[in-house]
Amino acid sequence: MSEKTIPYKIYLDEHEMPKQWYNVRADMKHKPAPLLNPATLKPMTQEELSAVFCTELAKQELDDTTPYIDIPEEIAGFYKMYRPSPLIRAYCLEEKLKTPAHIYYKFEGNNTSGSHKLNSAIAQAYYAKKQGLKGVTTETGAGQWGTALSMACSYFELDCRVYMVKVSYDQKPFRREVMRTYGASVTPSPSETTQVGRRILAEHPGTSGSLGCAISEAVEAASGTEGYRYVLGSVLNQVLLHQSVIGLETKAALLKYGIEPDIIIGCAGGGSNLGGLISPFMGEKLRGEKDYHFIAVEPASCPSFTRGKFAYDFCDTGKVCPLAKMYTLGSSFIPSANHAGGLRYHGMSTALSQLYADGLMEARSVEQTGVFKAAEQFARVEGILPAPESAHAICAAMEEAQKCTQTGEEKTIVFGLTGTGYFDMVAYEKFHNGDMEDYIPTDEDLEPGFSSLPQVE
Amino acid sequence: MSEKTIPYKIYLDEHEMPKQWYNVRADMKHKPAPLLNPATLKPMTQEELSAVFCTELAKQELDDTTPYIDIPEEIAGFYKMYRPSPLIRAYCLEEKLKTPAHIYYKFEGNNTSGSHKLNSAIAQAYYAKKQGLKGVTTETGAGQWGTALSMACSYFELDCRVYMVKVSYDQKPFRREVMRTYGASVTPSPSETTQVGRRILAEHPGTSGSLGCAISEAVEAASGTEGYRYVLGSVLNQVLLHQSVIGLETKAALLKYGIEPDIIIGCAGGGSNLGGLISPFMGEKLRGEKDYHFIAVEPASCPSFTRGKFAYDFCDTGKVCPLAKMYTLGSSFIPSANHAGGLRYHGMSTALSQLYADGLMEARSVEQTGVFKAAEQFARVEGILPAPESAHAICAAMEEAQKCTQTGEEKTIVFGLTGTGYFDMVAYEKFHNGDMEDYIPTDEDLEPGFSSLPQVE
Repeated sequence: MSEKTIPYKIYLDEHEMPKQWYNVRADMKHKPAPLLNPATLKPMTQEELSAVFCTELAKQELDDTTPYIDIPEEIAGFYKMYRPSPLIRAYCLEEKLKTPAHIYYKFEGNNTSGSHKLNSAIAQAYYAKKQGLKGVTTETGAGQWGTALSMACSYFELDCRVYMVKVSYDQKPFRREVMRTYGASVTPSPSETTQVGRRILAEHPGTSGSLGCAISEAVEAASGTEGYRYVLGSVLNQVLLHQSVIGLETKAALLKYGIEPDIIIGCAGGGSNLGGLISPFMGEKLRGEKDYHFIAVEPASCPSFTRGKFAYDFCDTGKVCPLAKMYTLGSSFIPSANHAGGLRYHGMSTALSQLYADGLMEARSVEQTGVFKAAEQFARVEGILPAPESAHAICAAMEEAQKCTQTGEEKTIVFGLTGTGYFDMVAYEKFHNGDMEDYIPTDEDLEPGFSSLPQVE
Repeated sequence: MSEKTIPYKIYLDEHEMPKQWYNVRADMKHKPAPLLNPATLKPMTQEELSAVFCTELAKQELDDTTPYIDIPEEIAGFYKMYRPSPLIRAYCLEEKLKTPAHIYYKFEGNNTSGSHKLNSAIAQAYYAKKQGLKGVTTETGAGQWGTALSMACSYFELDCRVYMVKVSYDQKPFRREVMRTYGASVTPSPSETTQVGRRILAEHPGTSGSLGCAISEAVEAASGTEGYRYVLGSVLNQVLLHQSVIGLETKAALLKYGIEPDIIIGCAGGGSNLGGLISPFMGEKLRGEKDYHFIAVEPASCPSFTRGKFAYDFCDTGKVCPLAKMYTLGSSFIPSANHAGGLRYHGMSTALSQLYADGLMEARSVEQTGVFKAAEQFARVEGILPAPESAHAICAAMEEAQKCTQTGEEKTIVFGLTGTGYFDMVAYEKFHNGDMEDYIPTDEDLEPGFSSLPQVE
């Protein structure tokens, strides 16, 4: 291996870390559509939002004009425990693919929650603490968000109540134990502890739950308990704001070595990672300073961007949450048992939805066996075992790099590696044993979800 | 949180990474006793060792005079994929303990094998490849070494055959899947695939295996197969040599900020991490340049240093390996079901044994419930979920820091955090549920192991 002028891993120094988050909405000509009150169908006010979210977070949710927002000192201090995350040059993957492309990935898996989710969890816990709350409630699917939030709450000594989708609760007992290590209480959802849970159990006895259903329970649990608020790990504007730390660090690291990316790729479930990674680059594009090719990658089994409708929809199954205008498959759509649990959500961030509608980025979908094949190949050459969610981005990055092998172009590709797959070995085992299947919903499969969309313009 | 002059995480730049390993034996006045041929009881020659190990590794095993050995370029290249590992200032733990002590830990868990084991695995795989071998065999207990070796073999496209202690094979299916992801074949031990395995199964039907037994099988499998050699992840001199990269990086990072450690702490199973971490510091002590207080921490249930005998013993149950002079509980000693699988070995590195016999370091033992209590406390404030093995060092570091709280001394404590506990959640679950027990063997319990020691001077 010859001497490389760019290191394998670019770490920023602490003083080079971002001191402010970047709010991409400030630079958007077409702002994301406002959240609507499901009862009145009027835009949610800060006061209404503050009944569900912490006051400061409600404010951040609505602020679409301030481009930079200071990262409070306490959060910046916590960030230093596990950030900056490395921007890694995938020399070994490039060699394996014999590609002239230069591939970089921003690796967010080097913390115990195993993903980028901690970036927003610590912010949300901080504002809850500052407001004098006792605790927060949330839902978790695969468990990465729940783990991140339990770590953040433990740090600020807040109570943390997690509703975990029942199928994951049963299949991922180790995730549950990590949350317990951090002192969180974990309830399988749907549960008997909420009205909406009891209703869903009555309607669908024996259901193994869904993210949309767990959200409904967590929201109800928070609104019914003095001193509690609900927090969410994706979709929301506030989450994209906090996650912009990923993109800001990436940008600073690239700048440090004079690297200009051509293509920026992220996996897309609710949009927390994709939005965080691309925000500052998208800002440049929106301001007409630079051009980048953005690619959102989603599972073919849950294709909100590529086959969804851009419409107002409920964020949850129980229809207790505000309505959001987004690319959606309908809140009644139940995604198939894809192993990338973090991407099994019917909707998408409203900001990313608007950007996609405005033609500012590409979206593509990939099938899960292809994703695991890419994941395994990546693990073998780059030494990191990726989460299935993250492997969607790997898959697209490899496709783009292979195009360069064909054309001889020396493109610079940056992708987000959101986390590690240590708690996903059941899925890897299925893949190794040849028991993994692909599933692409037919148009008929999607129809019921679309029919359930509320009639709102 | 106030501004800190020393960063939370000290990362060396790539050009500051060690270019040579350090061989502590070169500075030892009393050299570690040689390995003996179990048939002749004569010191093993390089030729004899080369029948089991790769030629270059056999040479390293015997070399007790060369202080620095170049790290081959290919290994240095692989190290750059996951090293340098961070030296972390435990600001949050210090605050929690209200201690005037300054605590640092060298964190080796940020790679997919989850521990420091990769440092030697990649070196051993490299020399095997260079020698033109087809593959290697090894044993694994908790699975960290097996995972590390399968990653290293995958990188150099070598076949990797792992004998995994049956109880772990059954209880840790996910570890097994990680190894399979890297293309290794994993066999539960004892197995029908070897003579020694069949013999042990005949003598102890239904046995759940042990590390000593898996070693015997792996050695037999290698010696019976053309183009294969056996590799081992601990105990050996060559392993300590490769692992010195931990201590060398630690030393360079401390030097960069003018930090002088008083106490250096490592957990001790076969000695790979402890030896690697302390080697360069021990070198200074041996040469009379500096003084440090070294502490080896072992489980009270498997107390080789603190209650073992310093004697020649077999390294394996099947008695096919050379004899080593070490602190040992006897090769027939079966440690209780302690959850720190990586520390459940009856013996200890010969070099560390000699250093301990010469009074150059302290050893202490801790009980597992105390270890898990420390692990959980650490996870909550430092954000890293430690492996049970690593938590032995945390436990002692916290003891020392609390002494400083009493005395007001501002000691600087450095400990090795060898890895993460993501595959140990069964143990954490037991701890949370109050189902974990401590076990300290009585003198009578230890007697049979001591009686089985071979009569060699």
